[in-house]
Amino acid sequence: MLLKHYFVSKIAHSSYILAGKNYCAVIDPKRDVELYINEAKQLGVEITHILETHLHADFVSGHIELAARTGAVIYAPESGKCLFDHVGVSEGDVIKLEDMELRVLETPGHTPEHVSYVVADTSRSQEPLGVFTGDTLFVGDVGRPDLFPDRAEELAVKLYHSLHEKLMKLPDYCEVYPSHGAGSLCGRAMGAKWRTTIGFERNFNTAVQIKDESDFVSSLTSNMPPAPDHFSRCSSINKTGPALASALPPLEELSAVDFRSKMDDPDTIVLDIRDYDSFGSQHIPGSWNISFRGNFPTFAGWVMPTDKKILLVASSAQEAAEALIWARRSGVDGITGFLDGGMFSWVLQGFPTAEVRQLSSETLHNMVTGSLNLILVDVRAPGEFEHTHIEGAVNIPAPELRSRYEELDPKKTIVLICSTGHRSSLGTSILKQHGFEDIFNVSGGMTGYSKAGYARQCRVCEIPHGSRYFSK
Amino acid sequence: MLLKHYFVSKIAHSSYILAGKNYCAVIDPKRDVELYINEAKQLGVEITHILETHLHADFVSGHIELAARTGAVIYAPESGKCLFDHVGVSEGDVIKLEDMELRVLETPGHTPEHVSYVVADTSRSQEPLGVFTGDTLFVGDVGRPDLFPDRAEELAVKLYHSLHEKLMKLPDYCEVYPSHGAGSLCGRAMGAKWRTTIGFERNFNTAVQIKDESDFVSSLTSNMPPAPDHFSRCSSINKTGPALASALPPLEELSAVDFRSKMDDPDTIVLDIRDYDSFGSQHIPGSWNISFRGNFPTFAGWVMPTDKKILLVASSAQEAAEALIWARRSGVDGITGFLDGGMFSWVLQGFPTAEVRQLSSETLHNMVTGSLNLILVDVRAPGEFEHTHIEGAVNIPAPELRSRYEELDPKKTIVLICSTGHRSSLGTSILKQHGFEDIFNVSGGMTGYSKAGYARQCRVCEIPHGSRYFSK
Amino acid sequence: MLLKHYFVSKIAHSSYILAGKNYCAVIDPKRDVELYINEAKQLGVEITHILETHLHADFVSGHIELAARTGAVIYAPESGKCLFDHVGVSEGDVIKLEDMELRVLETPGHTPEHVSYVVADTSRSQEPLGVFTGDTLFVGDVGRPDLFPDRAEELAVKLYHSLHEKLMKLPDYCEVYPSHGAGSLCGRAMGAKWRTTIGFERNFNTAVQIKDESDFVSSLTSNMPPAPDHFSRCSSINKTGPALASALPPLEELSAVDFRSKMDDPDTIVLDIRDYDSFGSQHIPGSWNISFRGNFPTFAGWVMPTDKKILLVASSAQEAAEALIWARRSGVDGITGFLDGGMFSWVLQGFPTAEVRQLSSETLHNMVTGSLNLILVDVRAPGEFEHTHIEGAVNIPAPELRSRYEELDPKKTIVLICSTGHRSSLGTSILKQHGFEDIFNVSGGMTGYSKAGYARQCRVCEIPHGSRYFSK
Amino acid sequence: MLLKHYFVSKIAHSSYILAGKNYCAVIDPKRDVELYINEAKQLGVEITHILETHLHADFVSGHIELAARTGAVIYAPESGKCLFDHVGVSEGDVIKLEDMELRVLETPGHTPEHVSYVVADTSRSQEPLGVFTGDTLFVGDVGRPDLFPDRAEELAVKLYHSLHEKLMKLPDYCEVYPSHGAGSLCGRAMGAKWRTTIGFERNFNTAVQIKDESDFVSSLTSNMPPAPDHFSRCSSINKTGPALASALPPLEELSAVDFRSKMDDPDTIVLDIRDYDSFGSQHIPGSWNISFRGNFPTFAGWVMPTDKKILLVASSAQEAAEALIWARRSGVDGITGFLDGGMFSWVLQGFPTAEVRQLSSETLHNMVTGSLNLILVDVRAPGEFEHTHIEGAVNIPAPELRSRYEELDPKKTIVLICSTGHRSSLGTSILKQHGFEDIFNVSGGMTGYSKAGYARQCRVCEIPHGSRYFSK
Repeated sequence: MLLKHYFVSKIAHSSYILAGKNYCAVIDPKRDVELYINEAKQLGVEITHILETHLHADFVSGHIELAARTGAVIYAPESGKCLFDHVGVSEGDVIKLEDMELRVLETPGHTPEHVSYVVADTSRSQEPLGVFTGDTLFVGDVGRPDLFPDRAEELAVKLYHSLHEKLMKLPDYCEVYPSHGAGSLCGRAMGAKWRTTIGFERNFNTAVQIKDESDFVSSLTSNMPPAPDHFSRCSSINKTGPALASALPPLEELSAVDFRSKMDDPDTIVLDIRDYDSFGSQHIPGSWNISFRGNFPTFAGWVMPTDKKILLVASSAQEAAEALIWARRSGVDGITGFLDGGMFSWVLQGFPTAEVRQLSSETLHNMVTGSLNLILVDVRAPGEFEHTHIEGAVNIPAPELRSRYEELDPKKTIVLICSTGHRSSLGTSILKQHGFEDIFNVSGGMTGYSKAGYARQCRVCEIPHGSRYFSK
Repeated sequence: MLLKHYFVSKIAHSSYILAGKNYCAVIDPKRDVELYINEAKQLGVEITHILETHLHADFVSGHIELAARTGAVIYAPESGKCLFDHVGVSEGDVIKLEDMELRVLETPGHTPEHVSYVVADTSRSQEPLGVFTGDTLFVGDVGRPDLFPDRAEELAVKLYHSLHEKLMKLPDYCEVYPSHGAGSLCGRAMGAKWRTTIGFERNFNTAVQIKDESDFVSSLTSNMPPAPDHFSRCSSINKTGPALASALPPLEELSAVDFRSKMDDPDTIVLDIRDYDSFGSQHIPGSWNISFRGNFPTFAGWVMPTDKKILLVASSAQEAAEALIWARRSGVDGITGFLDGGMFSWVLQGFPTAEVRQLSSETLHNMVTGSLNLILVDVRAPGEFEHTHIEGAVNIPAPELRSRYEELDPKKTIVLICSTGHRSSLGTSILKQHGFEDIFNVSGGMTGYSKAGYARQCRVCEIPHGSRYFSK
Repeated sequence: MLLKHYFVSKIAHSSYILAGKNYCAVIDPKRDVELYINEAKQLGVEITHILETHLHADFVSGHIELAARTGAVIYAPESGKCLFDHVGVSEGDVIKLEDMELRVLETPGHTPEHVSYVVADTSRSQEPLGVFTGDTLFVGDVGRPDLFPDRAEELAVKLYHSLHEKLMKLPDYCEVYPSHGAGSLCGRAMGAKWRTTIGFERNFNTAVQIKDESDFVSSLTSNMPPAPDHFSRCSSINKTGPALASALPPLEELSAVDFRSKMDDPDTIVLDIRDYDSFGSQHIPGSWNISFRGNFPTFAGWVMPTDKKILLVASSAQEAAEALIWARRSGVDGITGFLDGGMFSWVLQGFPTAEVRQLSSETLHNMVTGSLNLILVDVRAPGEFEHTHIEGAVNIPAPELRSRYEELDPKKTIVLICSTGHRSSLGTSILKQHGFEDIFNVSGGMTGYSKAGYARQCRVCEIPHGSRYFSK
Repeated sequence: MLLKHYFVSKIAHSSYILAGKNYCAVIDPKRDVELYINEAKQLGVEITHILETHLHADFVSGHIELAARTGAVIYAPESGKCLFDHVGVSEGDVIKLEDMELRVLETPGHTPEHVSYVVADTSRSQEPLGVFTGDTLFVGDVGRPDLFPDRAEELAVKLYHSLHEKLMKLPDYCEVYPSHGAGSLCGRAMGAKWRTTIGFERNFNTAVQIKDESDFVSSLTSNMPPAPDHFSRCSSINKTGPALASALPPLEELSAVDFRSKMDDPDTIVLDIRDYDSFGSQHIPGSWNISFRGNFPTFAGWVMPTDKKILLVASSAQEAAEALIWARRSGVDGITGFLDGGMFSWVLQGFPTAEVRQLSSETLHNMVTGSLNLILVDVRAPGEFEHTHIEGAVNIPAPELRSRYEELDPKKTIVLICSTGHRSSLGTSILKQHGFEDIFNVSGGMTGYSKAGYARQCRVCEIPHGSRYFSK
């Protein structure tokens, strides 16, 4: 057997090809599946099995797409009651693939229907060699059980039992292949390493170390990072079976004139994916800004309405095309076109623009030490804010500005800051949609502000492990 | 014989491969010569001849580079007294290449040493089939004789005689292969078409139609577009023989910290080649802005000091690498490095930035109709300005701001405008270097302003032929 | 106006984009039209006009495909009675495109419905600046009038009048833009140069020099190169409107087992496009060999049955994909799949193979000087054979072996030779299909044989102009 | 910490990047090091450590190249007495890299100086998380101790102790990162999987299961696959420090005429890397054939003289360029040029060629059942031969034909067979160099022969594990 690992950055998603001599399985595939098809061809094997550990919350899975393009059979948890063609699996089921056996363990907790697949290479031994743990057990962390808010405690209990009665019964030497690495919002403190072993986690995984069930539950149901809006949406899409990418409309190249005319449709919104400096300098009034360079898929999934058509403003046609793929990974399927020639073609038509000015660290420093009429809004997650922030700043995470803008006084000067400038620029775009005028974005964010040595106002400490997903 | 044509945009330069069965000549090559080498390989021929029509003023030629890499012999005007290894050619010389003959005509005027090469395909006829006219005769235009300001009249007289006593003696059917097309500053009114015939130009070329010598001279020595600074520099470089590209230092990738430390050297300047909106939003204080998207090689050649080391700020590593090539085409060889990670890496260090705000057409309109304390500077060429401008604007071409900034009152609000925004942004970078603070750039320029329908202040008319080189 | 020229090798086809500021016309496009679409985008113009000079015989035109993808209008000769949506044009019609005018001249001769388009750039003059002559007038040659064998004389007369009463009435300086260059079978002696002028051709074009009508007719109706089978087919396809490439089945990748099973269908044939040495070493019994490296589109069009499904054996998947495009240019639309993994995957299945041994020049020399029982078949065109051949060789052009194999004695050793080895290898594949066993191919052909100095048997002379299309 | 794995096919070599937040180590790098440099850049880390587990026998390592290009420090076993700049490491040494610690274990056996590096991620625990075992412990196998033939027993004893007293003392959960996977000649029975754990190998590794020292030694010193000639050479090169790739001459493109003239030098040999069918059809007399598609680096290292200049015949320029890299990985640095245009350009010159005919399975079957005068030579390794072969075949491994050709009667028909045809074609090229004339190669080899169902003569069984390296 051969095991290959594939990692999608930003959403920090791991998928795998498990191959024998002639056939292979793909475990938890991403939605854009060409990679697996090409790799299988290069390995000289046919994709015959697609294994889902659970209904993923943070991304749209590629199970349907891959099945449609290869004819492979989908295996998914029986209890998930999925609506697409599949083989439902439950505790004890064994899937054979040449001289490999994949035995099903039911390991609910992160989600109610979650299973793990224990692998044996029978050419070497009947004993387990590794286990695909999905979002149950990670490197240094476990899956968060709080994504269904009213079931958090029930699921935390299940997770406790899945860990101690199922996974921790496996031998120390058994390798662990999770579905996420550091940066994913499906846990809060994953390590950057992509794999681990049962023994190492048994001994050194903080969550597994909590032997008391109720301590475990209370730990796992408090201080979790926020769960983006698309998490419940993706679960539901994955259960129904997402649209085939080939069935979605291609990305249309629109002249400035056509672009503007399509904007008249009230069901159409504009998403500007350029860097914050370009966006700030001039953008189409009313547009959203989620920088492609930042954690685009997470924030696009989080804040973009899915009942609207979305038109992109990008810095190149290629960037627009890549953004389309990333957005679809987060279940944002509404993107239909992009502005051909970018903002340059827009201004050559003399069309109106709006601006958000960028503040350098130095200017910000002068403002916060001098100004009276200033509100400094730190749009990072609470965990980040608690560790380090500028005195006097208020904390409203960027996505929450969609409703919490009302807490701010539109007559005052409002300065937004995050870790580097991407999320705060998203924040500025939200505030502008609600009529705020006197807004600034801090370019370089807290990172630049600290580096510039304005540390007197700034409690400097390490950014905590779990908020790493925000940092790029 | 086979003739292939190669066009370099922005400087609107035409070069040619003239190939037989086994050998070929390259006429007026550009400095980066891989293209010719690859094409010759594909045609199955060896490059044995390199023909220069004259010492080009507007770009650094590839004669030395191509000779070094292929072993081909350079042919250049005898009277040019070139300092590199070459065969000097003069009136009546014949260069044989398989069954082709290239006969030399001395055609001074654009430059004193200029020659043309008349081609015969002796397998078909001894009669001339075409002529490489360099910058003597263009499609719809003739070469400007005013590049050596104190010799303009003398050269205009020579040009008159070169045209009427040499080129116009060729048969009507003889094809004309010039070294430039529309957009070049070596003429003022070239057509977009790349080639023509002697007969067509004899009948319909405006300059050739001026039969009286003194009328011709006075026409050709007035109302010429400005001659950029690098024109005399390039002539001199081409005469000496430019440095081999391989002898120049490679482009260094510099971290923000290293970049800033190199800036301490007083002989180092910063050139920001991003679009004006990115530049305007935040840039390194004191940097120049010449947008790579605009006519980068012309303005880089025009304004950048050549006795300085130049560090680039670009929107990508690839853009920086391409800019290096374009700058070298204009004899700007001082670029040594670029900012790795772009402005994003700069602000993450908390380093200081400066800004220039962009004005939309609408905002500009409101300002010019309302403001009292405003100076609107139109930085286009005089020819463009005369045709169309906003009432009250003053005209200072962008490169002239290097010295003429003193005409402006730094206490007033200064708004810069050009045709699309690129040149005016260059203008803002110059003014900021001289301490001006309250500066705006008009995004979209006169193009957007006209399209937006603010035509009352604007005498609308066609942009004249000869200023096309500014328009993109 | 701007004129850009595009050349397709092997079929030596020239097409053009004629562009104004915002719109452009494409003249005589090739079937795979992405190039024009991309170029128009880069030029910043929209394709609004598609101009056909005539119903091309040697290739399938891209008019229908380009119209479908751009919405442009097709202009074609009225008298062609084309079956697709178009504007029929006839003598004197004028097509306006910004400040350009294209005036229609009816110039029958090469085909009955042929027109030429005379171009004026009205911004410079009403006088003709150039003319798209299609296959009426070439560089150094005229279109052959013998493609409709029983109408050859009638068409030659028409051609005479088209030349002298239409095209030669244009001014000397008028440029000529033909649809073919050296290597095309639509003429017999074209120059390698891609364009010319009316004046030059008036004076030095051999065919135009024949002033007597009947001399002209008899010259043009004798000693023409053979007209491949697909010439009449392509005319008819172009008249009806070829299938859209997007409507044709994609190329299927077939395992050796699937490939062999599809071969059982009597309507399926195998085309091996590898070099003759690979083909000779081992190939699928019964397959055709047309080397992709040779003049693939011409010979594929010439000999491949169009009522069969065709499976490819290639040296790579990319070569197969390119061959598909080239075959479609010649109206061979039947290719449906290729052998995944090539011959290597075939022999790993232990499937049967056949061979054709290659002879080096030296071995051939020894054989022809020694053997008694040998037939040396020179498969080049009669014109090539007459100029140079090995004593004792018989001449049967490769495509004619399809029927003339009966002239050969299958009991004798048969050696096939052409100029380089490609066409003779095609010949061997045909003979093997008819049961010949003892066959050799001369690797390097007459070219190698002459270079090796076995010139005693070989009347050495220049390969005639008109047969250049065979030589690569 | 982040661990990334890189695999080089054919030589089945694994190398690793072990990265912290800002710095990283590369373990056992390959000679062409661009990959590591690019990956480090993408990960945002600097390469500061290069770790060698031992002096690799089967490939030339990239330690010197990588150090030269990054300034990183090389760590290598003290006892290896390496001649390049490095830090020598021995038992108990600890290398710190951010919050990672690499502790040195001396684990001789495969080679005398071998060390392993035990990794701890101190942010999680001081306990070992993984170990870089080099060629001491593989997935399912251990390193062979017989590469220094006269020290085999001594090294096997050391290996026994390294395994049981060092590696097996690590905890079950400790991950194992070896330097080779299935296909490498550094072991005989590795699994395809790239990593494992101490616990799994403790329980299921066949060699580790042999608890008795003398049984272990006798098992490890018998029935080993052959050790190619370059194994001792590479060790010595790695000790001295291989030449920098940039110091080696670039690959020269040679015309057929130049190629032939360089062949006159008695110190120059020709290596044909095309597939066996192309080689067989026509090749340059006297040339070697090692198909690039087969295990090129192993056989090139094995049989090519290193005191000669080598000229390549390839199927494309790109294939030649890639072969250069692969050859250098095996310490074959003598390649200086390739034949531009391939064999086609050779035969167009009429230069002499030689041939080797290919036999299909069917023809072979008829020959072996009918012929009297036939010698069937199976050139696979003894292990492969023992498992399956055609009755009557004699076994001489391909590389041994260099001396053992004398065992064959040059007057008889000799047929060579291997598993697929590549190695047997190498065999034919060797025999031809020694004057054999009547030679055939079996296309498809034993694989095709079995598939074709000629199994009566063929003892069918599974190909043994350890000989997998020959099979592709």
